[in-house]
Amino acid sequence: MDAGSRVTADDWERWAEACLLAQDFSADDARCLAHSLAQTSLWGIDSHGIARLPHYLNRVAHGSILARPDVRIERTGPGTAQVHGGRGQGIVVAHRANALAIEMARETGVAAVGVSDSSHCGAIGLYSRAAARQGLIGIAFTHSDSIAAPYGGRAAFFGTNPISLAFPRADGAPLCLDMATTAIPWNRVMNARRDGVALPAGVALDENGADCTDAQAARALRPLGGEEYGYKGYGLAMMVELLCGPLNGNPFGPHISSMYEALDQPRELGAFFIVIDPARFAGGAALAAVVAGMAVELSQAPGAPRMPGDPEADHERERQQLGLPVPPALWDEMQAWSSRLGVALPATRQA
Amino acid sequence: MDAGSRVTADDWERWAEACLLAQDFSADDARCLAHSLAQTSLWGIDSHGIARLPHYLNRVAHGSILARPDVRIERTGPGTAQVHGGRGQGIVVAHRANALAIEMARETGVAAVGVSDSSHCGAIGLYSRAAARQGLIGIAFTHSDSIAAPYGGRAAFFGTNPISLAFPRADGAPLCLDMATTAIPWNRVMNARRDGVALPAGVALDENGADCTDAQAARALRPLGGEEYGYKGYGLAMMVELLCGPLNGNPFGPHISSMYEALDQPRELGAFFIVIDPARFAGGAALAAVVAGMAVELSQAPGAPRMPGDPEADHERERQQLGLPVPPALWDEMQAWSSRLGVALPATRQA
Repeated sequence: MDAGSRVTADDWERWAEACLLAQDFSADDARCLAHSLAQTSLWGIDSHGIARLPHYLNRVAHGSILARPDVRIERTGPGTAQVHGGRGQGIVVAHRANALAIEMARETGVAAVGVSDSSHCGAIGLYSRAAARQGLIGIAFTHSDSIAAPYGGRAAFFGTNPISLAFPRADGAPLCLDMATTAIPWNRVMNARRDGVALPAGVALDENGADCTDAQAARALRPLGGEEYGYKGYGLAMMVELLCGPLNGNPFGPHISSMYEALDQPRELGAFFIVIDPARFAGGAALAAVVAGMAVELSQAPGAPRMPGDPEADHERERQQLGLPVPPALWDEMQAWSSRLGVALPATRQA
Repeated sequence: MDAGSRVTADDWERWAEACLLAQDFSADDARCLAHSLAQTSLWGIDSHGIARLPHYLNRVAHGSILARPDVRIERTGPGTAQVHGGRGQGIVVAHRANALAIEMARETGVAAVGVSDSSHCGAIGLYSRAAARQGLIGIAFTHSDSIAAPYGGRAAFFGTNPISLAFPRADGAPLCLDMATTAIPWNRVMNARRDGVALPAGVALDENGADCTDAQAARALRPLGGEEYGYKGYGLAMMVELLCGPLNGNPFGPHISSMYEALDQPRELGAFFIVIDPARFAGGAALAAVVAGMAVELSQAPGAPRMPGDPEADHERERQQLGLPVPPALWDEMQAWSSRLGVALPATRQA
């Protein structure tokens, strides 16, 4: 299969579900995970989409992700809960925690749910958007292993620790911001290595903590704001870390096991979800319409700035038509898992 | 009085209280506002500290800030409330809303309180820290009139819309991040104009939306992340705007009246506070100790990175000793208000 091949999101989802069922996931969890990854790739977020399934399957095979986790929900107050992930797959656990936050926010007006003992939970815009699609404000955080150098530091400490917020929008899909607290994602370093191109200046450090545009030599990312204003990205990453790690009894930064090494070691990752019911506030009834109006007003401002999430919406329109791109390396992994699990490969089409 | 003169925080506070009482503030509100401004200056945040009192006094005199507002608290759910500021002074109203969020979070585990029809609420680290000093996690947001250009835009739209989070810390004052979502504050442009120095590259735009290091020509700030990654600062500013403005029924961005123009026009500003009780989460009991331990671990990492809030703590130690700096222009304003309100000026000392 050449570099230009594609698979429809639906076909990929069916294939992924079959693989997960073959690995003993429940039908609900298999559907949830497959759909989340396909949706993420539809948004163009290739670093967190269908390309991650082989990794998750691999961790299940190594026993560090459990296909049938004992997810334990502990209600700790009218508006709070701790979800113990029981070493489950992070996306499955996160959807459950977020759904609980949505349910509780309807009752109390605001809810906060923390996740412990889970694993990589994918693109957190999945969760904030799920709340916003139900007319609520969704806020989501997660953390990851060390890759970002602190402001003033010379080596990785926190992860890329992303933040997502989503609001209902009257004229279409939710408004969603989903951003890492580093300037660039590590995935961009990996791509630059693969493609033999340089990194932009000011976003990465080498093993001595010096600025570095050579992707091969990059060892850590600078926080959002760079050399001058990176105390802001660093500060945000620390706050996200505390909400997702220590608050839930999970490890932080350098104490988190690596995603791609030690595949038999549970990751003990957390996440944190806050859901707010706009109807409890004076402007809540008009909020979705104001969001839509603000987008129009911005589009008419000098330079016609776009809204957060617009690039994802563009990707989704295109990829619903053309299918999801499947690079050769991913196709090879899919073939290997297909034969290992006895699942037929999905049909492909040329782009 | 020369440029090197200082006033102790206590002396300034007494003077400010007397001025506010003379303007018909209640004793509690005068104390709250005077103390908040002195505390902000102790932290070294001169843009939001004692230098702002003459402006607030001026707005009270013009009738756009009411000394005796009818602040109306509307409980809208177990975890939510809308605080109608009744055109009160923003810091006074915000403290009341934040205190309510603290009280509610103790009951429900998490609370969210929005503020409407208020005015400039100062440094929002005041509110997040107030929660953290009581063992809770404090999150605070506010918005302001247009000064930041959207990513891809050429003119100001949102304000510098800050974000603050604070956590309890076992070995001392709370850990606090308090940051604008622009790279630099507008105050820095004002100072550069005054001092005749250039701005750093990449942080400001001129009237045509072009990059600009001439402080006189600067008309808008770039969002955090600058030309390349400014969609992140822009996205954060938009989310803060929605939480503080439209959610509470307040105007947004270009529809907010200017701080220093139209002094007789109420500002209709909002704020938003989320308070979380760590005791409701698996790691809550150890959280303050983990924060302290994380600070030690960071101080021992390559480059010895510091914690958010460390510069404020340094300032506070120094200024508790030396007093608060009072530049000549501020002293002139203080003299004018002293004679207008019949309040004796505080004692000064040389730095």
